[in-house]
This record gives sequence, C-alpha cells and structure tokens, in this order.
Amino acid sequence: VKVLHGRLGKVSLVGAGPGDPELLTVKGMRALRTAEVVLYDRLVSPRLLDEAPADAERIQVGKHGGHYSFPQDKINRLLVERARRGMNVVRLKGGDSFLFGRGGEEVRFLREHGIPCEVIPGVSSALAAPAAAGIPLTERGIASSVAIVSGHQVKDARNPVCWSSLASAADTLVVMMALRNLRSIVHQLIINGRSLTTPAAAIQSATTPHQRVVVSSLRDIAEEAERQGLVSPVLLIVGEVVHMADSRPVQGSVADEPAKSVQGMGR
Amino acid sequence: VKVLHGRLGKVSLVGAGPGDPELLTVKGMRALRTAEVVLYDRLVSPRLLDEAPADAERIQVGKHGGHYSFPQDKINRLLVERARRGMNVVRLKGGDSFLFGRGGEEVRFLREHGIPCEVIPGVSSALAAPAAAGIPLTERGIASSVAIVSGHQVKDARNPVCWSSLASAADTLVVMMALRNLRSIVHQLIINGRSLTTPAAAIQSATTPHQRVVVSSLRDIAEEAERQGLVSPVLLIVGEVVHMADSRPVQGSVADEPAKSVQGMGR
Repeated sequence: VKVLHGRLGKVSLVGAGPGDPELLTVKGMRALRTAEVVLYDRLVSPRLLDEAPADAERIQVGKHGGHYSFPQDKINRLLVERARRGMNVVRLKGGDSFLFGRGGEEVRFLREHGIPCEVIPGVSSALAAPAAAGIPLTERGIASSVAIVSGHQVKDARNPVCWSSLASAADTLVVMMALRNLRSIVHQLIINGRSLTTPAAAIQSATTPHQRVVVSSLRDIAEEAERQGLVSPVLLIVGEVVHMADSRPVQGSVADEPAKSVQGMGR
Repeated sequence: VKVLHGRLGKVSLVGAGPGDPELLTVKGMRALRTAEVVLYDRLVSPRLLDEAPADAERIQVGKHGGHYSFPQDKINRLLVERARRGMNVVRLKGGDSFLFGRGGEEVRFLREHGIPCEVIPGVSSALAAPAAAGIPLTERGIASSVAIVSGHQVKDARNPVCWSSLASAADTLVVMMALRNLRSIVHQLIINGRSLTTPAAAIQSATTPHQRVVVSSLRDIAEEAERQGLVSPVLLIVGEVVHMADSRPVQGSVADEPAKSVQGMGR
C-alpha cells in the first residue's frame, strides 16, 4: 500500500436514510461532520451535505434511473485514492449501503487495497416508506414475512429476479425503485399467481416534502400511479397490510411540510 | 376523547436501532430528549434511556424470549392514558417499529382513541447485523432479493410462516430472533429445498460490544451456534452472500469495544 503524506485515511460507508435528513443516524452524522471528502449519490438530501465541514470536498457520484453516470470502478478508485492521501472519506448513499446499495462491492475493493473502512447502517426506504404511509410490513395474523427486491432488476439479465417463486413467497412484497418498470413488475406478479385484488401502495419520495401515497389494487396500481403522475423514486408495497394505510399522513415522518396523500380507486 | 389537564399529548413510536445507541436517528434522539414518558423494550440500550430528561418517567414494557411480560393491550392503554394527561410519550422499540415490532397495532389503537402519533423509523437489525458482519444482503450477480421472517413465528399457529415457498424464494434469507427455534428453522429450510451447503451466518447482539459472528453451512450452523454458546438475540442469514463475511469486524460498527468474531467450521 502506497501512502502519501504518511497517514492512511479511512472510508466510512454511511447510509443516509430514506430522504428526511433527520433520519440519518447519530453515528452517521458524526462521521459526516468530520469528513474531509464526501462522495454522495443523487438522492441524498442537500441539507445533509450542509452538515459536512464547509471546506470538505463534495463529489456527486450519483446514478440516475438505475444508470450509473459515474461508473462503480471510478468510485472505488476515488475512495482508495482519497484515503491514501490521508483523508477522512464519507461515502454517503441513500437508504442503507448493504441493501441494493452496492456497499459490498466498495467494502471488498477497499479491503483488497488495505484501506480501513467502517459501515454505518442507515434507515432503508424499504422500511421507512411503509412507516411514513402508516403501513406496517408485518402484522399479527396478516403478514409474517417480507420480501424485498429492486424494480431495476426486472430487466437485468446479469442479476435476474425469480418472480415465479418470489411473487407469492412472502406475505408482504416490497419493490424498491419500482416506477420505471411498474407495469412489468405487476405483470410478473400476476402471471406468477398473486391475486389481482391484492392491495398495493405506491409511495413517492417517502419521508420528504414530496411524499405522495397512492393506494389501489395490484391490478390497477400501475395505471393509478401513472394517472396521479408519480415520479421516481417510488416504492411499491403489495400485500394485505396495505389495508392499514392511513390517508392521513403519519405526523413527523416528513421533514418540512405536510405530505400529500392521494388515495387511488380500487380500495 | 377525555382530556385531562386540558392538553392532549402525542406519542412518538421511535425505532431505537439494532443495539449500538449511536444508530438511533437524529430525529429519534430529539424525540427522546424531549420525552416526558418513555416506554421501552428490554433490548433497548440503557445508554439510550440516559438521553431522556432526568425527570422523565421510564417504564420497561419488555418482552423476553418472544413472550410478552407486559401484555400488548396494557401497553396500548398506558400510551393512551399518558397522552391524555398531556404528556409527550416516546415508545422506544428495538430496531424498527414496523418490522416485527407490532408498531402497527399501537398506531391503530392510538388513532382509534384520537391520540396524535408519529412513527420515526429506525435501523432494523435485519439490515444492521449483516452490515456489522460485513455481509451485504444483495450483491450483483449473487443475490437480487431478500426475504425477512421472525424465528419466533416458527411455532406460532396464529401467524404461520409458509416455509415451503419462502425457503428458496429469495436469494438471501434473514431470520430475526432465530436462536430459540434455530434447529426447527434450519430443518424447515432444508426439507423445503434449500441446499445443505448454503452458507449461513449466525450473528449475536449485532453492533454491540457482545457481537459475535459464527459462519458455517446451513447443515451445521445450528450445531455450531450451540457449540460456540451464542445467546439471544441472534440473527440468521442464509445465502451465498455469506461468503463475503469478513472475520475482521467491520470497524465502527460496534459501540464500545472490539467485537468478537468467531469463524465456525464448514466454510
């Protein structure tokens, strides 16, 4: 390991939480406030970036719609390079790093290059978005299991999702980044045996001022989300627990302004 | 609604995170620091309780080994009663309230009684424990889906887990509170088609000074966890991603002292 300036920095992979900047952990906040470099994704709140020291270097390495504008190997090399300069590096990712966050790839690369790293878990939108819509993922007598997939993988041949077994395997199904392939996802679920009348909720920009919740049936959720003009990021929840969604936004789950809550038809 | 003292308090359901008190969210910390009453579960860190004001009332309503020493209806009634006294109530639950936390039941009861409530999501041990063991839940080309169940439900007739579909549905399977029924869980997974040689990890007290990680095969994990003397709470991870577990504890994922990491046989 070649160390410039005599000291090896470290990399903290910090889960930034689902959107509301106050859903960052206390530990994540401390790492951010002592960062010398912050590499952040597009979905990370600008208010969080303001928490880093004024003179910290800020590098956006975001993805957009599932496409990485900044290739993963370039991110990996940047992390190593800055740490070798002796800098405290924070890699700030939306949600949690280890659930569809590719944190595993970064940790492995850093280890292979002898860079000290720590993982600071975050609140995933897979959990926070249902909470913000008043939907528990599990509920006694209604749902005792949860499955989580990413909607971007519907058409990813290298990383296929086995919808035939997944469609009905868990009582509650959560699909992250669901909007772009929403019709395909719904189609896969239905042809693999999930009932057309299963309640479904599409949650846009959970825990932010832009939060919107559309509730419908599995059959109608894609059309309804389109009609209501939802924009990414959208999380889809399928299962009987959706019946517990409350049209009143859950107080305190939103950062700045009251959330807009939209009830679709089909309930 | 009968309001005593003229003002209706509110209830904040706060996810306390997986163990390390610094994995509480900034928002959860603020709620805790202004609480007048804290109802907390047994697994919540004492260091978190110290963050509540010195004169705040503290009530342990914990469960032990899946058995509620304090019945849910009594918790519900306490929340309503204290809010009606005009108090700011924090309901502090290990992990996240809406994933096997029965937060849904409490929110519904509070709404039915006209009590304002907010849900502040937390870092679930379902995500944090794998992170602390260096195991990503998803990984390109290896795992594109995750299923989460609670091990306490293996023998819960009112709330059965459908192991036949769940065993192989998702690439990565996470079983929370897995220790007590570990042999039954492994048995169910194997008879329902999960390979004996699937890598498995048992993680005790993740993100705390008592963290221990045992890595083995699905066939041997129960025996190995027993041999190593793991104690609850234990989270089980089954799937190829376990191959990425690092015997070195991930720095910073543990609160006070270096974690003990134990490698089992069968890797």
